[in-house]
Amino acid sequence: MFNFLMPTKIITGEFSVLNNSKDLIYGTKAMIVTGKTSGAKSGALSDVIKVLEENNIPYLVYDKIGNNPTIEETLEGGKQAKNFGADFLIGIGGGSPLDATKAIAVYAVNETGTDFDMYDIFDLKFKNKPLPMVAIPTTAGTGSETTPYSILTLHKEKNKRSFASPDVFYKVAFLDGRYTLNLPLQIARNTAVDAMCHLLEGFTNKRSSPASDYIALEGLRIFGKHLETIINGDFDTEKCTELLWAATLGGIVISQTGTTIVHSMGYPLTYYKDIPHGMANGLLLGEYLERTATVLPEKVKNALIMLGFDKLIDFKEYLLKILPCDIKFTKEEFEDWTATTIQAKNVPICPFEVTREDEIEIFNKCLI
Amino acid sequence: MFNFLMPTKIITGEFSVLNNSKDLIYGTKAMIVTGKTSGAKSGALSDVIKVLEENNIPYLVYDKIGNNPTIEETLEGGKQAKNFGADFLIGIGGGSPLDATKAIAVYAVNETGTDFDMYDIFDLKFKNKPLPMVAIPTTAGTGSETTPYSILTLHKEKNKRSFASPDVFYKVAFLDGRYTLNLPLQIARNTAVDAMCHLLEGFTNKRSSPASDYIALEGLRIFGKHLETIINGDFDTEKCTELLWAATLGGIVISQTGTTIVHSMGYPLTYYKDIPHGMANGLLLGEYLERTATVLPEKVKNALIMLGFDKLIDFKEYLLKILPCDIKFTKEEFEDWTATTIQAKNVPICPFEVTREDEIEIFNKCLI
Repeated sequence: MFNFLMPTKIITGEFSVLNNSKDLIYGTKAMIVTGKTSGAKSGALSDVIKVLEENNIPYLVYDKIGNNPTIEETLEGGKQAKNFGADFLIGIGGGSPLDATKAIAVYAVNETGTDFDMYDIFDLKFKNKPLPMVAIPTTAGTGSETTPYSILTLHKEKNKRSFASPDVFYKVAFLDGRYTLNLPLQIARNTAVDAMCHLLEGFTNKRSSPASDYIALEGLRIFGKHLETIINGDFDTEKCTELLWAATLGGIVISQTGTTIVHSMGYPLTYYKDIPHGMANGLLLGEYLERTATVLPEKVKNALIMLGFDKLIDFKEYLLKILPCDIKFTKEEFEDWTATTIQAKNVPICPFEVTREDEIEIFNKCLI
Repeated sequence: MFNFLMPTKIITGEFSVLNNSKDLIYGTKAMIVTGKTSGAKSGALSDVIKVLEENNIPYLVYDKIGNNPTIEETLEGGKQAKNFGADFLIGIGGGSPLDATKAIAVYAVNETGTDFDMYDIFDLKFKNKPLPMVAIPTTAGTGSETTPYSILTLHKEKNKRSFASPDVFYKVAFLDGRYTLNLPLQIARNTAVDAMCHLLEGFTNKRSSPASDYIALEGLRIFGKHLETIINGDFDTEKCTELLWAATLGGIVISQTGTTIVHSMGYPLTYYKDIPHGMANGLLLGEYLERTATVLPEKVKNALIMLGFDKLIDFKEYLLKILPCDIKFTKEEFEDWTATTIQAKNVPICPFEVTREDEIEIFNKCLI
């Protein structure tokens, strides 16, 4: 018994935003949500503005989304969308703006007050349907364009929290490799590893199913095709669009399956050590797969075949090569972090048993 | 450059209707659309009624849909839904009721009159959004539960016509092998072949893409697993649910790609000779693949590998074995039919060039 849902329309290819204005315009007044620089640098923001202006759609640009967006940033975005009277949102960026857009879509039509506290978003206690949204990813990693998830940083709790609702699937996602072509190489690598984590975690966790496994293998096959490019950086628009598609498949997979401890253990690395999300996951992925291979040897073997590796050790070496990290950690940090990470929702769906001691051992093996 | 859209939520497994009442109930008043016997015989109708009654949802059963539904049947269904005040529809059956439900969903909220002629449905000239619909397939074949297509028979034109609109994707599809378990063996075979046609035609036609090819291969892999069962009829609920899933994948594929001349040339065999839709397609499939292999040898080879055949001749023999047909045809009939079939929308997306003479030759090779 398994389910499948992924209602987002995906439009791929060069100039797809410019050539599909009807799919970009989902209302009469738009707020564009993006990062401080990602929207502009990628070229996506100017394409979007061109289409909106040609079609006389008033718009407001909210470009205050930082890495690992805070709940406050999204609350402020919701207020601005409401004041402006936006009836649809366009999210442009990596995982941070694309996740933030989902929360903004909720807050824009659900004012916080006595009935609805800002933290109630995590329990889906909003009455009004979120604004419709369009996604334009500028990294090939997050998969947020095809997930019902939004992950926000809570400084009070010194961690991240997420909500998941079918109401925050994007209506449309545009995948144009032009927007990821000029990413700094290390960001391209980190985000690629994030997507590979989605595919591998989704393929191996306990919620994997016939509805997600074949999609995961297809995503891994595409990454396998581009392993060298991710090392040496010789991207072109076509390769970038293919990688965007593979990352989107990763989003489709985790929409069905969720992730694993790779993701939940990665969060403190990002929060306390400022390690980019994809890199944080990648540092933990090898050991996760080692342990997974003890319970699901065939699955790990098949995943490696699709990626183009004979042995797990080769993939681990590949990851080390593309994820240079000289940050130092202490055993005390691992003790502290695991108090929280062991409580994550994706611990029980891990393919192998995980105790707090296991998590400490995994941190030790991967980071020291 | 390619697109992907398939917004239907899929819920699979035994008793999935009974266990997911929230996903079945899409409004406050339901009209159930089904065939004269399929809804009752499959057991699906009683499951649906049980859930509706438990939840105090008033319902009307419209079980007037015959094989190859006529536009008049759907128009009448639309009137009944309107008079009853239904705000959602539940389609139960094979391709005929599932296609008819889509047209009924349009007519229920778009009255025919001076503004909107009944034939205007084919040009999508309806103003109001069709009613939301839930699908419960009782054959593993049509894929209608995950397509935006509805194919209706027009006696005046002595042919079939179709419309395609993203507005008629089902909200939810329930795949429960219990409902196909007791199908007569020949119907199970015919419908299986219909689904294989969808997968193979979608995989090879000119609109196939990276967004559909891997789905087609997965569907073919599942059919390949069950070839013997389709011959000898030793179905069980689990196998039936797997085949329903494979057929649904066929629907997802043709939603992206459309079909080919196999489908358009199959229509007159059904209309004039009363050959079931799946069988009609299956009789033409072998020769279609022969010709496709001349231009796409790798694709045909890969498709056959997934199905578990070494050579095309083996698959052709398999089809002959499961599709016994002793109906006689004349060359005059082929002349007549091809006047219409050569104008079909799926002729130009065929992987090889097709003239009217080619179609006559294909009919000759396959049927005489």
